[in-house]
Amino acid sequence: MTSPHRTRVAVIGAGPAGLLLGHLLHRQGIDTVVLESRDRGYVERRQRAGILEQGTADVLRASGAGERMDQAGLRHDGIELRFDGGSHRVDFPTLTGGRSVMVYAQTEVVKDLIALRLETGAPLLFEAEVLAVDGIEGDAPTLRYRHEGAEHTLTCDIIVACDGFHGIGRRSVPTSALRTFERVYPYSWLGILADVPPSCDELIYAHHPRGFALHSMRTPQISRLYLQVPPDEDLAAWPDSRVWDELSTRMAVPGWTLATGPVTEKSITPMRSFVAEPMRHGRLFLAGDAAHIVPPTGAKGLNLAAADVTLLAAALTRWHRAGDTTLLDAYSATALQRVWRAEQFSYSMTTMLHTPPDQDPFDHRLQFAQLSYTASSRAASTSLAENYVGLPLPGLEELA
Amino acid sequence: MTSPHRTRVAVIGAGPAGLLLGHLLHRQGIDTVVLESRDRGYVERRQRAGILEQGTADVLRASGAGERMDQAGLRHDGIELRFDGGSHRVDFPTLTGGRSVMVYAQTEVVKDLIALRLETGAPLLFEAEVLAVDGIEGDAPTLRYRHEGAEHTLTCDIIVACDGFHGIGRRSVPTSALRTFERVYPYSWLGILADVPPSCDELIYAHHPRGFALHSMRTPQISRLYLQVPPDEDLAAWPDSRVWDELSTRMAVPGWTLATGPVTEKSITPMRSFVAEPMRHGRLFLAGDAAHIVPPTGAKGLNLAAADVTLLAAALTRWHRAGDTTLLDAYSATALQRVWRAEQFSYSMTTMLHTPPDQDPFDHRLQFAQLSYTASSRAASTSLAENYVGLPLPGLEELA
Repeated sequence: MTSPHRTRVAVIGAGPAGLLLGHLLHRQGIDTVVLESRDRGYVERRQRAGILEQGTADVLRASGAGERMDQAGLRHDGIELRFDGGSHRVDFPTLTGGRSVMVYAQTEVVKDLIALRLETGAPLLFEAEVLAVDGIEGDAPTLRYRHEGAEHTLTCDIIVACDGFHGIGRRSVPTSALRTFERVYPYSWLGILADVPPSCDELIYAHHPRGFALHSMRTPQISRLYLQVPPDEDLAAWPDSRVWDELSTRMAVPGWTLATGPVTEKSITPMRSFVAEPMRHGRLFLAGDAAHIVPPTGAKGLNLAAADVTLLAAALTRWHRAGDTTLLDAYSATALQRVWRAEQFSYSMTTMLHTPPDQDPFDHRLQFAQLSYTASSRAASTSLAENYVGLPLPGLEELA
Repeated sequence: MTSPHRTRVAVIGAGPAGLLLGHLLHRQGIDTVVLESRDRGYVERRQRAGILEQGTADVLRASGAGERMDQAGLRHDGIELRFDGGSHRVDFPTLTGGRSVMVYAQTEVVKDLIALRLETGAPLLFEAEVLAVDGIEGDAPTLRYRHEGAEHTLTCDIIVACDGFHGIGRRSVPTSALRTFERVYPYSWLGILADVPPSCDELIYAHHPRGFALHSMRTPQISRLYLQVPPDEDLAAWPDSRVWDELSTRMAVPGWTLATGPVTEKSITPMRSFVAEPMRHGRLFLAGDAAHIVPPTGAKGLNLAAADVTLLAAALTRWHRAGDTTLLDAYSATALQRVWRAEQFSYSMTTMLHTPPDQDPFDHRLQFAQLSYTASSRAASTSLAENYVGLPLPGLEELA
């Protein structure tokens, strides 16, 4: 592939946010270049989220990227809460007027979007590292990037940073122009991927005095499971047998057995909340993890990224078609409303389900009261359900 | 009045809990003695809560103590949440299937119950200080008390401590037999009573960066207002004019004015959560503030006390009639479920509405997101409403 020098919208990062944005804009006839520092194999194998909100599935479907998802994805109509040896189901369609979620791995979304992009022939450069972001306060911002052994400059109208928490995008905004908000939780998640059919039809969120556990899945043959562990935990302390034992203990309810199988991947992820405000500086826009991080408990990370870029694609389309910047100017404020709703939900799910180190007895009782209430009150269950399935996506009609 | 020496149920404390319990038991033909260390005038003037849950109003009505409440009480169908310069109403009947609350001061409830008690002639002793609680692990517990200059011993089957947080009741349980849970909040409430018609039809709960404010009322002529202040605040720093100015600032919304008037009472109350478990030791039962304290934000203190004694009256009635101790044995566990629900709600209302000292910017945004969500989601509003109007009272049918 040649190394392009001019485009309308330059997108940094070929994760789900960057790829979906590139795809949505391409469908509107807007020139884009997507630059990704890693190679294709890495991006396609990177294990991340697996739960798509109704709105995320909708935008993938509406943009022609939903075919394989609709074949292979698993529609989930609820989750199971386990605590105090009991089990309580939260039914999404009943509580939210028919909405649900889709279990379909982020890696698969990424593969689908890469395949679509390559089909269209629109520029998608792997191993293209952005070295500098310049001129974002003017009308013709530029990206300096390294590709195929040489440095190039890409001039554009708009840069969108979809390059994650550690990317160059957010770092290119003057510190004085950004306000950041952060919370680091006193625990991490040890996650495994295992070649074993899930021991449940829906996700199990388990609260246990020994710590939180989550039984998720990727396909009918592949399970994804998580354990709360101390933040500085050493992976070497967790041979597979210990992981399975601990999962079984924390998720135990009478008459249920956790099936075990070969572990194919194992890693530890810290838990963090982070928001940068605003999500725009001049001609540079931030989307997804570049602007905000949620702890994974609420399954909101990928979905927030999809919501950001859908909103942004709608705004850029309006601008492209009519020279109207109204939506573009409202992007940051509009996106941040959804972001903070998701941050608050993720925080609330996280603190309700995890056992913090040295938990105060009063907090322990409160946590139990909140779990009992969530399981027994229709209003509280509805609140969990409506947040979990997610708000309708803004901007989707603009792109129709 | 003579100083009695034998009864079936001895009740310590003539606050609303002790008086209501005495009245409920008397109606079931169960002999009781109510002992109160203060004089009648003190008890009848003591300013406390003013919001009766539907269930509390129900039990007062069902026991013949609701006449004046139904004449003078103000039925409230909602509350107003104010934050960020805006106002949002939470409508109780719409969200809870027709339930509401009653604004009727605790002092009035106490006056009504004292009048009823004196009418029946059942023993109610003022200025009767309990000096010792003995024999609660046996079958014939005793109270030693001072009354009219002499010491007396009252022998009974059951002692119920309705003598508040600082009373002798809970202190008579061996420390090793009680587990306590506590949270002290980093703020207090400065409360005033003022001779001015309320500037609102319903209670206003106002979140403000300068601190929480609450506009409540006692009657159509008397307002009750509160300000969040630091825990060690000096009342002398708050002349009336400063109180009114601060209330106006914190509750400001366009087009609304706070009417001011003569302040007739002013005090500072700390904010605390406290629970003692279990709520029974042998023949001694704890009810109301003797067992648990909630911060006043959720208006749950008086209502929990009423729920405790209704449950206990039903249990004692069953025991008295049929020698069946099932309900009595279940009292602590049953009551504590409601207590922890109310503790969690009170904690949640308190932390959502108050501005803690040195608030972390992340927490500030979360708090705002939670307020916005509570105001805009039907599920979240319903959750607030159903907790505020309260759960149905257990035991009421047993007493019919």
